[in-house]
Amino acid sequence: MAHIHLGIDEAEYPGITGLLRYRPETAAALGALAEVLLHAPHPSLSQGERELIAAYVSGVNECDFCASAHSAFAAAQLDGGRPLVQLVRADPDQAPITAKLRALLRIAAAVAHSGRQVDSELVGSAREQGATDLEIHDTVLIAAAFCMFNRYVDGLGTRMPVDPGAFDEQARRVVASGYGD
Amino acid sequence: MAHIHLGIDEAEYPGITGLLRYRPETAAALGALAEVLLHAPHPSLSQGERELIAAYVSGVNECDFCASAHSAFAAAQLDGGRPLVQLVRADPDQAPITAKLRALLRIAAAVAHSGRQVDSELVGSAREQGATDLEIHDTVLIAAAFCMFNRYVDGLGTRMPVDPGAFDEQARRVVASGYGD
Repeated sequence: MAHIHLGIDEAEYPGITGLLRYRPETAAALGALAEVLLHAPHPSLSQGERELIAAYVSGVNECDFCASAHSAFAAAQLDGGRPLVQLVRADPDQAPITAKLRALLRIAAAVAHSGRQVDSELVGSAREQGATDLEIHDTVLIAAAFCMFNRYVDGLGTRMPVDPGAFDEQARRVVASGYGD
Repeated sequence: MAHIHLGIDEAEYPGITGLLRYRPETAAALGALAEVLLHAPHPSLSQGERELIAAYVSGVNECDFCASAHSAFAAAQLDGGRPLVQLVRADPDQAPITAKLRALLRIAAAVAHSGRQVDSELVGSAREQGATDLEIHDTVLIAAAFCMFNRYVDGLGTRMPVDPGAFDEQARRVVASGYGD
């Protein structure tokens, strides 16, 4: 049971999905933010790469629901699929990704601990690997946003889905339609 | 100088204000979230109380810009003004606030560290002091959202305003018009 009475069947609406139904006014703003950060067209970061940043940060924050969900969404949109996502979440420094994405994930990890841990060395390293200002901005904001989503989901004591396949079903919807209504 | 080139005069647009101008697409979603959490009508938490939660969490996260801004916004909307805000930020347990608000601030402090630190004891204590499910929900989400805003502002290395009076001027605008366009 969640910490508050959500007025829905929690088995049917696990994790954030029950919270979004509980409070439609905040759900609309949160959905719009997820849409622009993770699904809307981007000049250089693919949807899969952005979902990978979300999944990685959620793992750092030990939020099982968000980490599982966004790992499934990343896997559905990256050529390397689930094996690549698992390698990145285990250790980005050893995973077969570009040096630019590795540098961006280092920034994301710093953000997860504190915004004040992002320094000119981390940013300079990302820039040396070809990261643009927009990529650095969006990496910081995606990581920061998942510090919010993770705390929202866990802070209200929501549960994982009974069926782990639920994340793959949800991934199909996110790939097709994003985070809008 | 911020970590990225924002294309604006950083002295004129300090903290989050420069970031909002840099990326209007994310600014719209962030503004909508702040509006519904902090300024939109609420059945029981006043605008001042919600700003106080935001200021308190920003202090816990050591984000000087957000803590100063939302302290000013809280002070402008609470009968106790700036002295009350300073007492709460220094130690909510000793500050002259209701037992309900004190219990909600304890939940907010837990969220700032990790969503997993919110337990049934903290939630039960708030409920014993009369907190509703909606108040507990919004406290968790305001605290979580400021874990995002704080990391966004500090993670991109933005600066404080040169004129500390800028926050009081901004407070007048927020009280009058909220966080929309």
